[in-house]
Amino acid sequence: MTPIMSRHEAAALVDSARIRQGRTWANLAEHLGTPLVWTAAALLGQHPLSTEQARSVSDLLGLDDAVAESLALQPSRGTPAEVMADPTIYRLTEAVSVYGPALKALIHEEFGDGIMSAINFTVDINRRADPDGDRVVITLDGKFLDYRW
Amino acid sequence: MTPIMSRHEAAALVDSARIRQGRTWANLAEHLGTPLVWTAAALLGQHPLSTEQARSVSDLLGLDDAVAESLALQPSRGTPAEVMADPTIYRLTEAVSVYGPALKALIHEEFGDGIMSAINFTVDINRRADPDGDRVVITLDGKFLDYRW
Amino acid sequence: MTPIMSRHEAAALVDSARIRQGRTWANLAEHLGTPLVWTAAALLGQHPLSTEQARSVSDLLGLDDAVAESLALQPSRGTPAEVMADPTIYRLTEAVSVYGPALKALIHEEFGDGIMSAINFTVDINRRADPDGDRVVITLDGKFLDYRW
Amino acid sequence: MTPIMSRHEAAALVDSARIRQGRTWANLAEHLGTPLVWTAAALLGQHPLSTEQARSVSDLLGLDDAVAESLALQPSRGTPAEVMADPTIYRLTEAVSVYGPALKALIHEEFGDGIMSAINFTVDINRRADPDGDRVVITLDGKFLDYRW
Amino acid sequence: MTPIMSRHEAAALVDSARIRQGRTWANLAEHLGTPLVWTAAALLGQHPLSTEQARSVSDLLGLDDAVAESLALQPSRGTPAEVMADPTIYRLTEAVSVYGPALKALIHEEFGDGIMSAINFTVDINRRADPDGDRVVITLDGKFLDYRW
Amino acid sequence: MTPIMSRHEAAALVDSARIRQGRTWANLAEHLGTPLVWTAAALLGQHPLSTEQARSVSDLLGLDDAVAESLALQPSRGTPAEVMADPTIYRLTEAVSVYGPALKALIHEEFGDGIMSAINFTVDINRRADPDGDRVVITLDGKFLDYRW
Amino acid sequence: MTPIMSRHEAAALVDSARIRQGRTWANLAEHLGTPLVWTAAALLGQHPLSTEQARSVSDLLGLDDAVAESLALQPSRGTPAEVMADPTIYRLTEAVSVYGPALKALIHEEFGDGIMSAINFTVDINRRADPDGDRVVITLDGKFLDYRW
Amino acid sequence: MTPIMSRHEAAALVDSARIRQGRTWANLAEHLGTPLVWTAAALLGQHPLSTEQARSVSDLLGLDDAVAESLALQPSRGTPAEVMADPTIYRLTEAVSVYGPALKALIHEEFGDGIMSAINFTVDINRRADPDGDRVVITLDGKFLDYRW
Amino acid sequence: MTPIMSRHEAAALVDSARIRQGRTWANLAEHLGTPLVWTAAALLGQHPLSTEQARSVSDLLGLDDAVAESLALQPSRGTPAEVMADPTIYRLTEAVSVYGPALKALIHEEFGDGIMSAINFTVDINRRADPDGDRVVITLDGKFLDYRW
Amino acid sequence: MTPIMSRHEAAALVDSARIRQGRTWANLAEHLGTPLVWTAAALLGQHPLSTEQARSVSDLLGLDDAVAESLALQPSRGTPAEVMADPTIYRLTEAVSVYGPALKALIHEEFGDGIMSAINFTVDINRRADPDGDRVVITLDGKFLDYRW
Repeated sequence: MTPIMSRHEAAALVDSARIRQGRTWANLAEHLGTPLVWTAAALLGQHPLSTEQARSVSDLLGLDDAVAESLALQPSRGTPAEVMADPTIYRLTEAVSVYGPALKALIHEEFGDGIMSAINFTVDINRRADPDGDRVVITLDGKFLDYRW
Repeated sequence: MTPIMSRHEAAALVDSARIRQGRTWANLAEHLGTPLVWTAAALLGQHPLSTEQARSVSDLLGLDDAVAESLALQPSRGTPAEVMADPTIYRLTEAVSVYGPALKALIHEEFGDGIMSAINFTVDINRRADPDGDRVVITLDGKFLDYRW
Repeated sequence: MTPIMSRHEAAALVDSARIRQGRTWANLAEHLGTPLVWTAAALLGQHPLSTEQARSVSDLLGLDDAVAESLALQPSRGTPAEVMADPTIYRLTEAVSVYGPALKALIHEEFGDGIMSAINFTVDINRRADPDGDRVVITLDGKFLDYRW
Repeated sequence: MTPIMSRHEAAALVDSARIRQGRTWANLAEHLGTPLVWTAAALLGQHPLSTEQARSVSDLLGLDDAVAESLALQPSRGTPAEVMADPTIYRLTEAVSVYGPALKALIHEEFGDGIMSAINFTVDINRRADPDGDRVVITLDGKFLDYRW
Repeated sequence: MTPIMSRHEAAALVDSARIRQGRTWANLAEHLGTPLVWTAAALLGQHPLSTEQARSVSDLLGLDDAVAESLALQPSRGTPAEVMADPTIYRLTEAVSVYGPALKALIHEEFGDGIMSAINFTVDINRRADPDGDRVVITLDGKFLDYRW
Repeated sequence: MTPIMSRHEAAALVDSARIRQGRTWANLAEHLGTPLVWTAAALLGQHPLSTEQARSVSDLLGLDDAVAESLALQPSRGTPAEVMADPTIYRLTEAVSVYGPALKALIHEEFGDGIMSAINFTVDINRRADPDGDRVVITLDGKFLDYRW
Repeated sequence: MTPIMSRHEAAALVDSARIRQGRTWANLAEHLGTPLVWTAAALLGQHPLSTEQARSVSDLLGLDDAVAESLALQPSRGTPAEVMADPTIYRLTEAVSVYGPALKALIHEEFGDGIMSAINFTVDINRRADPDGDRVVITLDGKFLDYRW
Repeated sequence: MTPIMSRHEAAALVDSARIRQGRTWANLAEHLGTPLVWTAAALLGQHPLSTEQARSVSDLLGLDDAVAESLALQPSRGTPAEVMADPTIYRLTEAVSVYGPALKALIHEEFGDGIMSAINFTVDINRRADPDGDRVVITLDGKFLDYRW
Repeated sequence: MTPIMSRHEAAALVDSARIRQGRTWANLAEHLGTPLVWTAAALLGQHPLSTEQARSVSDLLGLDDAVAESLALQPSRGTPAEVMADPTIYRLTEAVSVYGPALKALIHEEFGDGIMSAINFTVDINRRADPDGDRVVITLDGKFLDYRW
Repeated sequence: MTPIMSRHEAAALVDSARIRQGRTWANLAEHLGTPLVWTAAALLGQHPLSTEQARSVSDLLGLDDAVAESLALQPSRGTPAEVMADPTIYRLTEAVSVYGPALKALIHEEFGDGIMSAINFTVDINRRADPDGDRVVITLDGKFLDYRW
């Protein structure tokens, strides 16, 4: 009579094993055949894995069944406020604070009244070489959903 | 002895004139020769315009000199919490909450310890046709800055 | 050079005229040919009206063009925290606090990993006679959106 | 001299056993003869079960007496803020933020000054087939309570 | 085309006229034939008055029709956080913080699972002479509502 | 070298033993010869018990000396915000939010500038039979303290 | 039909006139025959003045009757959070944060379970010469109130 | 490889031993030869003790070296928000809220622009007999620091 | 009977006149003979000016006596939360969040238990040429104050 | 299958060993050949160490491999709110609150629209002898980053 391991604990075990084995997130994404950002987000506890995916990544990392069982659990999504204050993450929040109203205005101009879905949604991250310093390029790609009654 | 009009008031006048004249943000960007998201953000009060830009957009919209004077003012950037709760803007915040830790992990994996700059930074928004419903594609492109002592 | 009247001011004028003329929200919905909850929400500032709808309701209520102009404005949606504390509204928030995790679990059980859209979404309210006291019946009807990469 | 297991721990054990045995919430509701949303909410810690219900569900899931004892405990109701931010739950909060003032206005119009009870209250959830994508239909049904001195 | 005066403004005018004319809240309650606490709460903006009550109190205090119109408005109830910090009000909040869990336990013990309604609810305040210093006696009297599905 | 058990842990043990033995709060109050609300509040951790009271209740419930030692500890009073959101407790807070300014006005009208003490203060709870549903009657009885320099 | 001037506005007028006339708070206290800290607190809006005091100080400062009328109003006490952050005021809050638990422990040790009243309470401020730099000496003097049922 | 015991745990052990041995804070202050409020604040975790003081108090109370080691640790000062809400501590915060702006005004009047230091600062607490009830007298004595560039 | 202009309004007028006349903060500092950061902070409303300084800067900028009167007012110091979120200011807050505990540890190591005064304190800002991009150098220079009883 | 020790636990072990061995932060900085503030910040959990640095400091302090493994982990940066309230750290926050807008204005005046980087950034702390009391001198040195599209 023990509860299923929390997604938070499972994420810590996955990340620890990943680091100790010298594997990158890209390795894990390739192993699973899943997109890079999705893979990192899922293994950090933001998406459920299928049973097969959970077992596969757990086996690869030499973790036991309790981890696999947890990875397939439907998580409660989101990030605690104190982690959101980490500078690398905060820059994204700041960008939303500075550009959010402009993006809202432009979405309405181009598409009408509605939103960019954050559910039917992909995120990609790439490195773009630049002589003035390489750049991080993050692409948010979400289906437009119009306010529809 | 009157203070310069606040950026908030100037933004309301610009947006009102824009709507009444049936101009899009894209028209204004084209008129100014500036990028689309930058133009909307700047006119909504998040970036200072040069004196020439301020006068040019003010003339185009038939606004008086007090507006142009204000548009050239260095603003205090950011968006109030109640506006951040608007659903169209909130989806961006939610995406940061769900994918922020994954993006942080992937930035560190690819670039090392550092951040994507939100200052040396561009944002673009595009429409991508899709048979399942067109998509909003937002590209965040910022210089990688490594923690460097 | 005056800004478009805020949606908040327009809502106050609409509601004031509605009360003074003894019209119900149902009257306005019927006049516009729009659903009841949508109509009240839109006129209280949560949805843009089309130019025709804005003019029609403004004419009906004897309000001037400045109100109609405002009603067609794309609003910033949401309700301030102090209004959310009103007991009639708070009961809805309390219901989400008590039943939210159960509804999440049941949505996942029935539909898989995803959400009920709040955009492709209708709300209806009805009175149901009951010998123990009539009941308020609120129906939330939103498209299921699966987390889809 | 050990305290009764917390409702939170009991909920984790119930949900873990449910998943491991492949039982749905609907199974448990049927087993107990209780409504679906009530059952999920109660087992997730928002309502006390009767001693018989607690024992019955505990036996079904192969959990020991300590769980049954806890399930009959009067809980402290509500959901922590970080769980309320989960996207599936947040959409409900957003709906209250967008439609709350309209629903308040319509309750007052139809019933007079009062509230929809969140205590003498049922919640139901259903799937409605729709060619454009199936829909989640949530019905909130509460007794109208008038402000009565 | 002016909006109905806000309940907040109307309350300030009522209270100002009341003070200038040297009338007590008890006078106004007697004039209206309404309970004391209800009267003060209503005139301070927490309950709508009937049209007759609104006119009657407005006439008594020599206020014009705009005040009467506002007093009949359905208010948004509640008190801003900064006013809640006033020491006279804060002591009530502190009493809830110290005795709230005990009252919850005793309501459940005596009545079962449910609440004391704050809607079908009266409040009375009295002075009780006491040789050690007179006492304020506040009686909260609300219908018990059981959680009933 | 172990610290005295926290009041929180002691409260959990007292309440658990109380439930397992089928004792009511009223039983414990009678056993101690103390008022009902005081007894529940004290045993839930809001008031220190005398050494004799602590031992007496601990013996009655078959708890060991560590519990008695803790019950005599001077507590840090108050209730965490998440417990205050429980609906049964929240209705009390809502009543303060709706009626607080009225009660303040009436205290000042009757007694002058000052407060109802929350220290020299008793709370009582009673059931009042009512054909429309029995009622919870809570009496707050505090010494008036005038602002006195 | 104008409302009584707010205590906030009256305080601004009193302080402005005081500064323009070169009067100290000590002058005003002497003029009124009231304690120094009480006088400053009352004129800054934290205590009501008697009608005579209000008229007297208003006459002294050459302010009109509307100010005197406001000064006699029962205020809503307390200071907004942003003013509490002023460094001169913040040091007092910091002292409570660092020494509050110790003062609580010592009050309980010396007096038993209870509080220092903040109502039957005086505050005095003095300058104490010191070769290492003069010192501000603030004396808080409040009646002990024991938790008494 | 164990970390030094936290100041919080050490404080709990000191206070527990103090109570079990029937020692007052005054005893401990006398034993250490340190001021009363300083002693209670330091042992409750707000000031570091010297190694000798730490050992001396630890020996007196029969605590082991791990406690002494912790007491000499430089603490992170301050009190959590939930403890600040305890009524005995809250009255001090309320006094700052009601009298803070007056004390600021009087410090500026007497000393010029600056603050009362909370670092070069002592606090004393005394009992003053009074026929109307004994009084708690708290003296805050801090060096005036002028804003000096 | 008008109140002294708020420091906020005076700051807006000073900054507006400064911009319109093309004067830098450095010009104003030179004119007043005061340090650069002090001058900007004072004119933006964080420090009182002497009567002579206030008049001098007001004359230079062609502002009237009401501004000078306000500039000599003792301000309530601090910056609203929404302005603190401006990216240029936020980087300073982030630096305190990342390096604050380290600076605390090093202050204690070098000076003992105490603080760097923020009152007996100067701030300077300089540009340092650097081939990789010029640098902002901010020097905080405050008197060490030891916790001294 | 154990997770890597958290940076928080590793920091507590490093600091405990440092104190027990009587080593200063300066010793550790010298041992590692790294700047003083960087060293303290990194070992307190705000920067990752290289594997060699982690092992070197772990060996020096006699800590085991689990600590070294943790020190090389990429941390989540930032400081919890309750630690930010410590007076030694708070003075830095207060300085940003008082001088932040002035520093923003001066950065814009000297450099144009942009920020001082908190990433390409060094912090130094020094003691400056002063007859009136030695001073803490903190130098913040960050690359200017202009808003560049």
